[in-house]
Amino acid sequence: MKDEVSARIRSLAESIYQQVVSGEVPYLEVPARTKDNIVFDPLASVWKYGTSKVVRGAQTTDGAGYLVKALYVMDFIEEMLSANKSSTLREMYYISEGWGHGKFATQDESNMMAEDLEILLGLLREDMKLRPEENGASVIGNLTVLERNRKGQMKKINCKDDVGEGGYAIPYNVERDNLVLKDADADLVLAVETGGMFDRLVENGFDEKFRAIIVHLKGQPARSTRRLLKRLNEEMHLPIYVFTDGDPWSFRIYASIAYGAIKTAHISEYLAVPTAEFVGVTASDILNYDLPTDKLNEKDIAALHAELSDPRFQTEFWRQEIETMLSINRKAEQQALAKYGLDYVTDTYLPEKLGSSGGDLHA
Amino acid sequence: MKDEVSARIRSLAESIYQQVVSGEVPYLEVPARTKDNIVFDPLASVWKYGTSKVVRGAQTTDGAGYLVKALYVMDFIEEMLSANKSSTLREMYYISEGWGHGKFATQDESNMMAEDLEILLGLLREDMKLRPEENGASVIGNLTVLERNRKGQMKKINCKDDVGEGGYAIPYNVERDNLVLKDADADLVLAVETGGMFDRLVENGFDEKFRAIIVHLKGQPARSTRRLLKRLNEEMHLPIYVFTDGDPWSFRIYASIAYGAIKTAHISEYLAVPTAEFVGVTASDILNYDLPTDKLNEKDIAALHAELSDPRFQTEFWRQEIETMLSINRKAEQQALAKYGLDYVTDTYLPEKLGSSGGDLHA
Repeated sequence: MKDEVSARIRSLAESIYQQVVSGEVPYLEVPARTKDNIVFDPLASVWKYGTSKVVRGAQTTDGAGYLVKALYVMDFIEEMLSANKSSTLREMYYISEGWGHGKFATQDESNMMAEDLEILLGLLREDMKLRPEENGASVIGNLTVLERNRKGQMKKINCKDDVGEGGYAIPYNVERDNLVLKDADADLVLAVETGGMFDRLVENGFDEKFRAIIVHLKGQPARSTRRLLKRLNEEMHLPIYVFTDGDPWSFRIYASIAYGAIKTAHISEYLAVPTAEFVGVTASDILNYDLPTDKLNEKDIAALHAELSDPRFQTEFWRQEIETMLSINRKAEQQALAKYGLDYVTDTYLPEKLGSSGGDLHA
Repeated sequence: MKDEVSARIRSLAESIYQQVVSGEVPYLEVPARTKDNIVFDPLASVWKYGTSKVVRGAQTTDGAGYLVKALYVMDFIEEMLSANKSSTLREMYYISEGWGHGKFATQDESNMMAEDLEILLGLLREDMKLRPEENGASVIGNLTVLERNRKGQMKKINCKDDVGEGGYAIPYNVERDNLVLKDADADLVLAVETGGMFDRLVENGFDEKFRAIIVHLKGQPARSTRRLLKRLNEEMHLPIYVFTDGDPWSFRIYASIAYGAIKTAHISEYLAVPTAEFVGVTASDILNYDLPTDKLNEKDIAALHAELSDPRFQTEFWRQEIETMLSINRKAEQQALAKYGLDYVTDTYLPEKLGSSGGDLHA
């Protein structure tokens, strides 16, 4: 992989160099990364960038700065590859302090550059040795993996027997080089939004009773978490169920798992699981289970309206649920099911939801 | 432990009952939980609650409600003990939906009740089977523990060899019943605020080169994380160093580890490590190392001023650093050290800080 990354970086740098020597004003071209420019790919059933492009050329100071920054970052990635190091996105932002005109003004700008380079080089950020700040999502269940440790050895870990109560911590790089999925003695994967609910399911033995691998999403899931879900689905042939709170932000968590997120639409095929099913709290659940609720605030309402025009939510199921939520003006947390006792979620709610989700949620 | 908890609950309930039958208006008495009512305990070198008390009696509707809620919670704890269950604080709040006049209005109120019961019963929340939402801090280093798993067996885990890159996840209950510290082949413990820096130290092999156990605090550390630091200090005789960002919120992280937090002053002896030393980024470091900074915002400035009157910061060292920070009007993150490259923190900064911290930080 290392040689391949290096070769692609050199080839991109070479192409910029050739533009210069041939008398052309050098430029780079990337897809427009906005909601208007994501389109459904029927083959992969995920949302990807469309055909709108943005050209960054050295005609303008901004465009020239962009090229300088891109070249500095490529050089930095080469350095890390040869020193066998990696860097957080935050560290790269600080390291750019020493890059003169290549210095990033904000971390948003340097993060965006990392994503642009993924597109330009056709690589994952992980291949380029760039890490997010926090990962820390965890897994409990009868899954056996081989993880590469710092010494380069592959270490075998069973996510039920070889871990403590906190579970197996998902590393930032879950590509095959680093993490091999060896065996999964399970019937399904349940991805859970909150730590409190994850602990509840573990304490109630949901993983054993339902032969489930339980993944804690920690709110909006990191790329490594989504990638692991994708691999569990693809390689281990396990269905993915997503169990979240009942509010617009949780609906987005589901959408990012099932269809991809706008920020990462260039790698939706790697991350998204189109067959993932939503078993989180819906507006109908709030009514049917008579759950304790909170009132929607202004931001909630705006987010629900935005979802009504989001291409990922254009199904009968989502339109109805979003409109019901707006009309009852209420949201609920997954832990609100505790109203009926600590066992209700595993004895009643989840069996009902899993039983009824025969694909009709996507109708 | 289970029988002891049950006995104390029954004894407290009995005392309320006796108040009623003897014709007294029933009441409970707890310390005032404010900054004005924390005092330094020179014996333990930690800050604890002073002598101001608040009486909650059934003369008023509020006071009567408080007693009803306390009794419901005690009953709920008894139920969990006999069913061998635990509950998050959030779940307890939702469960109170079914308690009529015992229903909590907000989760702040139910959290406060859990802490009051710790004081009234002389127990830890963990003994009462109440858990926080998230724990998830982690450890990497040559520490071997025995952790009780769901089947009740004690499982041996080495926090260097038996874990993945994410490290050992600290469980919510780290009391001796649940977690035995078996062996620590190390010279020091470094508690680190951010995930990015934790990963940096691990990648750079800081744990091996400096014979360190590295603990990720995840921002303001959970009780279980502070308790584990305390036990590493007391039982394994390891010095604790705290490595944070350079801003008022990080100073508070240090203070809560070293001297205790206001919310948990009733259990400071269990949680605080008075000899913990601060090796985080100071205002002097910002100047001496010429670090990339951000401007203080209004909340930062207010927090620094509050610290000047906080009894925990009344040392020459802290007064000078806080005043310098206010005068330069700048703060810096620990990852800002990446300005000088990815190895600078482990090759230069930490050796300098650890070498110079011969107790003079506390002078």
